[in-house]
Parts: sequence; C-alpha cells; structure tokens
Amino acid sequence: MKVIVDLCVVPIGVGVSLASYVATCERVLQQAGLTIRLHPNGTAIEGEWAPVMAAIEACHVAVHAMGCPRIFTTVTINTRTDRDQSLDDKLASVQALLG
Amino acid sequence: MKVIVDLCVVPIGVGVSLASYVATCERVLQQAGLTIRLHPNGTAIEGEWAPVMAAIEACHVAVHAMGCPRIFTTVTINTRTDRDQSLDDKLASVQALLG
Amino acid sequence: MKVIVDLCVVPIGVGVSLASYVATCERVLQQAGLTIRLHPNGTAIEGEWAPVMAAIEACHVAVHAMGCPRIFTTVTINTRTDRDQSLDDKLASVQALLG
Amino acid sequence: MKVIVDLCVVPIGVGVSLASYVATCERVLQQAGLTIRLHPNGTAIEGEWAPVMAAIEACHVAVHAMGCPRIFTTVTINTRTDRDQSLDDKLASVQALLG
Repeated sequence: MKVIVDLCVVPIGVGVSLASYVATCERVLQQAGLTIRLHPNGTAIEGEWAPVMAAIEACHVAVHAMGCPRIFTTVTINTRTDRDQSLDDKLASVQALLG
Repeated sequence: MKVIVDLCVVPIGVGVSLASYVATCERVLQQAGLTIRLHPNGTAIEGEWAPVMAAIEACHVAVHAMGCPRIFTTVTINTRTDRDQSLDDKLASVQALLG
Repeated sequence: MKVIVDLCVVPIGVGVSLASYVATCERVLQQAGLTIRLHPNGTAIEGEWAPVMAAIEACHVAVHAMGCPRIFTTVTINTRTDRDQSLDDKLASVQALLG
Repeated sequence: MKVIVDLCVVPIGVGVSLASYVATCERVLQQAGLTIRLHPNGTAIEGEWAPVMAAIEACHVAVHAMGCPRIFTTVTINTRTDRDQSLDDKLASVQALLG
C-alpha cells in the first residue's frame, strides 16, 4: 500500500539544539531511497508502507545511537484507493487553486 | 524496539459517522494481541515496533475494505532506552503527582 | 465554536522525566474549568474554542515558568456543525459497537 | 508568546477532493498577515500565539461555511524561551548540516 507520510522526530533529554538529530534522520531517509521533502516542521515522505515505516524505525535507532535516551515522533499517514497521488501532485493541486 | 503509540484513524469520503470504522480498527488491534487503551480521541497502544506498525497497516486495509477511499491517520511514537515504561506506568506517574 | 481537542505537551531540554510538567498542565486545564480526560498519551479536552486555546497557551506559560526552555506540543482539533457531541459520547459510540 | 506551528486541516463528509478547502485555508492565513510556508502535508506558520490561533479558528469557520459538516485538524506548536527562531532559520539549520 502506498503512503504519503509527514514525519517529525523530537529528541528528548539532549538539550534544545536538535538540528543534528534531524539531519541524521534526513540521511537515513535518503539512504532508504524514499522520495522526501524537508520542510520547516518535518519531512514529507512518499513510498510503500513497509519501507517507509522501516525507515522511520531506522531514524529512531540512529537517534538513540547518538546518545538520545527518549524520542517523541509524530507521523501522519495518508492512503487512498481512489487514485494515485504523489507528494508533488498534492502540493500542486493546492497551488493551482491559489493561482 | 518497544513503542508506546497513540493512534487516530480518520476515514475520509464516507460521511461524518465514523464510529463503525473506529470499532473495526479496535478489533484489528485486539486481534493483533497488542495492549491497547481506547480513549475519546484515539487509542493508546503498547508493543514492539514491527507488530504495532503492522497492526496499523491492517487497520488501513480493513477500513479501505469497508469501502472508504481515503484515510488520514495520526500516530505519535514514544521510544526510550533509559528505562522500560508501560502505558499504565505513564498514566500512573502523572496521576500520582495530581494526588 | 465548540471543540474536542487532544493535547500532548512535550517539554524539551529538561531531561527525560516529564510527569511533573504534565501534571502542571493538568492543573492548568482543571483550573480553566474545562472538561478533561487524562489518558496515557495526552489529555482529551472539551470546550469552546477560545478558552480551550487560552488554556493551552497557559500550559506553555506554566511549563516555561518551571524552567523549560523549549516545548513541542501536539493538538488535534475536532469541530462539527451537524450535531453536538461530547467527549463521553465520542467514546461511548465506539464502545457500543464493540459490545 | 511567539509560536512556530504546523497546520493540517482535514475536511470530513465532503468527499475525497480536499484541495479547494486547503486553498481556502491558505487564503485565510495569508489575509491574517502571518508568515506561512505551504508544504505537501500542511502549512508551516510563524507568528504570535493569539493571532495564529485566531487564524486557525477562522480556517474552521471558512471550511464549515463551504458546507463541510466536520473537520479534523492537526496542529503542532513549538515555543522556546532560549532564543528567537524563524521558520526559515529552522529549515536552514538542518540544510546547513546536510551540506
């Protein structure tokens, strides 16, 4: 099943500077071969269910391996059976209406 | 890796009465043998990463099979390496402070 | 406008033990006179838009006042114009189907 | 209090084509004079607490006025007292590490 996901990984217990942890997650997602779009509050991801969820687990493993003892992650998952839709389609359909 | 998850499945394109879809998801989660706590806005889940995520995928499959063409799901994921914590521990630690 | 909200406040930069911050938020919400239901992953809240959002802001003020430098909060907001629904109605409608 | 928010408004009960509702919300946010960045899964928003939350309420009012009977919205809220950070800073700090 194809999914469009939005991911935000929040490391807890490692202070307030989180960019290095987010950058690690970006590299994990890139290496997984997923289509991704980094934005100010997270990362949009497009792919099949199993590899996307495996990549999110790999993000948790990588962030814990950096010494982070606790992680809080938000994920939104979109699936649809009526038609295929990409991340770029989703954005373009709104931008077209905004002119 | 053990996870504590909060799950909210929102069926789209099937009107405004969603309880039957949520009930279907509850049965899927129960049949997966996971520890779950239904609450007004979702379901708290405790388990290992892979079976929890497989059960959430099974919820999507079941809701689509009921004729729902589009699903939006929110998931929050908690992992920690410092200590083991259950759903009931998490709630009890706050309730103890509230007296 | 009436809202049903789910709230999860995540203090960042104060270590991994967060229960005291969550308990502070519970007291803020109680003192605001809102209908609330604490669950393992957050708090369900029922009320009018403005007082609910003001109470969530008061939670941020209170947690920062405890010395927390950064906060990440998730909120889900449900509104409907077709009928009135309470937190307890929402839970009961699913539980009735589960038998 | 300054906030960085991520917003995703999900109209329920109006079928599966949601772009027109999302475009309406974008216009509401623009007219509120907020700094916003549309992305594939939502909109990043920067501003002061009260006007940001008032603009989100105005999105709900506008979507209900389009005939939508039920709305499910996700909001993440970031506040920090240690330093000022903009949406663009937040993105740039990760991109700098990715090279």
